Amino acid sequence: MDLAILRFLQEDSGTPLDDLGKKVNLPKSTLYDRIRKLEKSGVIEGYHAKLNSSRIGYDYVGIVLVKARYGPHYHDKLGEKIASIRGVWAAYYVFGDFDFIILTRARNREDMMRINESLVNMPGVERTSTQVAAKILKEDQRVPL
Amino acid sequence: MDLAILRFLQEDSGTPLDDLGKKVNLPKSTLYDRIRKLEKSGVIEGYHAKLNSSRIGYDYVGIVLVKARYGPHYHDKLGEKIASIRGVWAAYYVFGDFDFIILTRARNREDMMRINESLVNMPGVERTSTQVAAKILKEDQRVPL
Amino acid sequence: MDLAILRFLQEDSGTPLDDLGKKVNLPKSTLYDRIRKLEKSGVIEGYHAKLNSSRIGYDYVGIVLVKARYGPHYHDKLGEKIASIRGVWAAYYVFGDFDFIILTRARNREDMMRINESLVNMPGVERTSTQVAAKILKEDQRVPL
Amino acid sequence: MDLAILRFLQEDSGTPLDDLGKKVNLPKSTLYDRIRKLEKSGVIEGYHAKLNSSRIGYDYVGIVLVKARYGPHYHDKLGEKIASIRGVWAAYYVFGDFDFIILTRARNREDMMRINESLVNMPGVERTSTQVAAKILKEDQRVPL
Amino acid sequence: MDLAILRFLQEDSGTPLDDLGKKVNLPKSTLYDRIRKLEKSGVIEGYHAKLNSSRIGYDYVGIVLVKARYGPHYHDKLGEKIASIRGVWAAYYVFGDFDFIILTRARNREDMMRINESLVNMPGVERTSTQVAAKILKEDQRVPL
Amino acid sequence: MDLAILRFLQEDSGTPLDDLGKKVNLPKSTLYDRIRKLEKSGVIEGYHAKLNSSRIGYDYVGIVLVKARYGPHYHDKLGEKIASIRGVWAAYYVFGDFDFIILTRARNREDMMRINESLVNMPGVERTSTQVAAKILKEDQRVPL
Amino acid sequence: MDLAILRFLQEDSGTPLDDLGKKVNLPKSTLYDRIRKLEKSGVIEGYHAKLNSSRIGYDYVGIVLVKARYGPHYHDKLGEKIASIRGVWAAYYVFGDFDFIILTRARNREDMMRINESLVNMPGVERTSTQVAAKILKEDQRVPL
Amino acid sequence: MDLAILRFLQEDSGTPLDDLGKKVNLPKSTLYDRIRKLEKSGVIEGYHAKLNSSRIGYDYVGIVLVKARYGPHYHDKLGEKIASIRGVWAAYYVFGDFDFIILTRARNREDMMRINESLVNMPGVERTSTQVAAKILKEDQRVPL
Repeated sequence: MDLAILRFLQEDSGTPLDDLGKKVNLPKSTLYDRIRKLEKSGVIEGYHAKLNSSRIGYDYVGIVLVKARYGPHYHDKLGEKIASIRGVWAAYYVFGDFDFIILTRARNREDMMRINESLVNMPGVERTSTQVAAKILKEDQRVPL
Repeated sequence: MDLAILRFLQEDSGTPLDDLGKKVNLPKSTLYDRIRKLEKSGVIEGYHAKLNSSRIGYDYVGIVLVKARYGPHYHDKLGEKIASIRGVWAAYYVFGDFDFIILTRARNREDMMRINESLVNMPGVERTSTQVAAKILKEDQRVPL
Repeated sequence: MDLAILRFLQEDSGTPLDDLGKKVNLPKSTLYDRIRKLEKSGVIEGYHAKLNSSRIGYDYVGIVLVKARYGPHYHDKLGEKIASIRGVWAAYYVFGDFDFIILTRARNREDMMRINESLVNMPGVERTSTQVAAKILKEDQRVPL
Repeated sequence: MDLAILRFLQEDSGTPLDDLGKKVNLPKSTLYDRIRKLEKSGVIEGYHAKLNSSRIGYDYVGIVLVKARYGPHYHDKLGEKIASIRGVWAAYYVFGDFDFIILTRARNREDMMRINESLVNMPGVERTSTQVAAKILKEDQRVPL
Repeated sequence: MDLAILRFLQEDSGTPLDDLGKKVNLPKSTLYDRIRKLEKSGVIEGYHAKLNSSRIGYDYVGIVLVKARYGPHYHDKLGEKIASIRGVWAAYYVFGDFDFIILTRARNREDMMRINESLVNMPGVERTSTQVAAKILKEDQRVPL
Repeated sequence: MDLAILRFLQEDSGTPLDDLGKKVNLPKSTLYDRIRKLEKSGVIEGYHAKLNSSRIGYDYVGIVLVKARYGPHYHDKLGEKIASIRGVWAAYYVFGDFDFIILTRARNREDMMRINESLVNMPGVERTSTQVAAKILKEDQRVPL
Repeated sequence: MDLAILRFLQEDSGTPLDDLGKKVNLPKSTLYDRIRKLEKSGVIEGYHAKLNSSRIGYDYVGIVLVKARYGPHYHDKLGEKIASIRGVWAAYYVFGDFDFIILTRARNREDMMRINESLVNMPGVERTSTQVAAKILKEDQRVPL
Repeated sequence: MDLAILRFLQEDSGTPLDDLGKKVNLPKSTLYDRIRKLEKSGVIEGYHAKLNSSRIGYDYVGIVLVKARYGPHYHDKLGEKIASIRGVWAAYYVFGDFDFIILTRARNREDMMRINESLVNMPGVERTSTQVAAKILKEDQRVPL
């Protein structure tokens, strides 16, 4: 039942509670309680309008592969700092040839250079390799349920 | 003004229209009209509940670097096919050493192997390199406004 | 309790049952039954004398990184064939830059070339990179319990 | 003759001495003496129950390629320290592009991260690349005789 | 003497012949003859206004590393075809890890993709890696004399 | 109209103003004014004789891929210094695996080594990879109009 | 004793037999017999004047890393063909990332391109990477005795 | 004429002067003078018996790719030191991805490790990659004349 609710809310969180109740065959109050529980437990993290980034002027998309300089507890602090650069919207600490892989959006070439400079100036960053996106084929954070 | 509306809706699309109207200092009907226009023009693509993927059982996160076999119009069709693999939630056609970079979520090692096999069995894919995520540091598709 | 038994048997499977019984504080027959159950369930796979490979004349140790040519169901069959080459004692199908990583032992350079040739002649193998071991620092298949 | 004894003990070290004697056509006491000599000379290093690691909960298997920072006598000390990390069951000092190649087993992603952190925090380690195993195709330390 | 003439013409080919004659201390007619000889012998290939490419709208500059598929006389024909792609203004056949290195200028991302697609669709091209320029630091084809 | 003028001046800047005026159908004085404006605005940067570099004895052409050591504001100063090495005629700060890509011309192997040494001795340069050109396929800085 | 003879002959094969006999304290006829035996057994392969290659006009020295296309018995035939290219004076079949490493000497850039073309046109060669020597630091085939 | 003499001496420096004189059609004394001149000018560097290295017990042949740490005049001193390691018989300073490429011969694995350790312990060496030779296909330092 929870899965059905999540699926609908993930698909379109703008659906009024009444309509949703009919779809999942639950009285409105029960539905409301369940949703609150899913929110409190952290399964639902929020409700957001999804914007088309290129229409708002974010034309430069980059995927940056980052190698860090090794040392005690290097990745916790470094990862935090990397994730907080304006323009970095996803960041992963990975096994493999790199230490971090991050996704960036920038308004133009100068803005993309700014992100790159932020990384390069960060003590602990050894090397970055920026793959400039020619085309976004898909960006849909919804989880298959 | 539109930016302010977008900022609020992106932050929390669950806010009732009345509250939002007060925040941006617009009568409800005007606000409603502006939002519809933003939806129609494609700036707003939808409203979604954001779910915590690991709480729903998606424990294996991978970033896959893909090299394609070259040939006429290879990337359009191939990109489409790659993007449609279940578990691939983001896909980019990139300049640089690779042709595609994709982000995947899987329930377990077998599920991750399934995604890998889908890629490997796809004519046109020459080589993949999967970087397994040790930790998700950030995943927040909201555009800075 | 089972963990204690496994730990002792893994450490030294030559210990007589009586001595082992005293160590884990179990009557011999109960101990015997538990061990049989661990064997039947597949937790214990066998009992083996561990030999010093270099004393028996296996002087060339190699770690081979293998890239496969992609295609339908390539890795199941190929992995099986690779694992069955005489001299290959461990084989892994991996995520990452390579497809298989294998461990080999050979009597001499000619024998090592034979293993390499077996790989190179195998349809489906695209590239191998053999890292010749200068020194074995550790080889102890026992699982920490 | 010694080879025959070694072959049988390696295959199944649980065989009673009487049965083994019949197989290799030797009186029990002679057989016993020969085995003791093989043990003392170090050809036989021990007798161990072989356990199925994944059944005991070791689900994450990694092959880690390690590059060291160069300097006087770097590899002797560093190799020792790497080999003593809990979860590292094999370690090789290699010629080639890397300095060490190690095999690891971990209980889960956090445990695998712990091993990675141990390496990364170790002075002298410059870079690691962890290849996560999708499947163990073979692990059989027995030497072909 | 020829070097002095070349140096001045390379620096500024707009200088009237009279002024140039004074600078190099030659009567106008002798100067004229010498210049004609340098043109005929191919030392001087032409006279061109140098334009600022980004002012004319060429914002995307790329350096593309190309690997070719090997085969008889592959590079002569392939090199010619690569050099004739619109937007490729320099092309080198190199020793080293790559076969060709080319310099490109494009009006926008779509135009840069077009160049990339031209390469990718060309039989004989095996792999390309495009390094997108963040900044042009220098572009001055003049030869030091 | 400006484009037509630029096209002609780029093609051959030696054409007398009268002839050019006829081609673009403009009185000489108007043409003169327009050209001065294009010069002042920086669209036209100069007029140069193009020399054949190999005829003047520049036989060694190299494309150098440079990796820099990271740190605060590293690329501005470093880029400037790299661009000012005698023999470097083009230099780009790039996204991707390298930090700078430069084009060099040298008289002979010793001269090429001098350029290489200049780079190697420069604090801030971490690694260079020089691709020696076997053949110049194209070098034509003119912008397509 | 043989070692002493070999050392002297390797050092300077022009020494008259009488002088050599005195140095190693052997009568000329015994010495003669021993040398003949070393020649027949293949320990001594010949006597050669060592020429300074750059003085004879071999200015381009390259070390070429070759990757082969895999297939049955690929390296025996391919290695033979590679070794017989004019200008290739050493060739090794190696374990590691490459399949062959060869040393070449060429008279000029065109001659070096010819060697490269011979490799590139050879069926079975997949990729070559030529490292052009800036300087020969040592070339002394004598074996330390 | 000199070329003919060089060709013969390079082929077999053991030929008596009389025989050689007949072959190149020169009186012995003229021949003698010419050879002396070739020796003095450095074209002929010496006369050596060529030994079969594997027959003398040099079984491990390696080609080592060396990357150096950059800094002022790094390569002159470093190259000298590398070339003087016992077992290094050829050394090149190269353009390309590496800084030095060296050829080594060792008696056994321990001896090969010694060479590797010498490199690794040398300040200024950043990384080495040793390609172990499986087979020597050709080693013939004679220059084609």
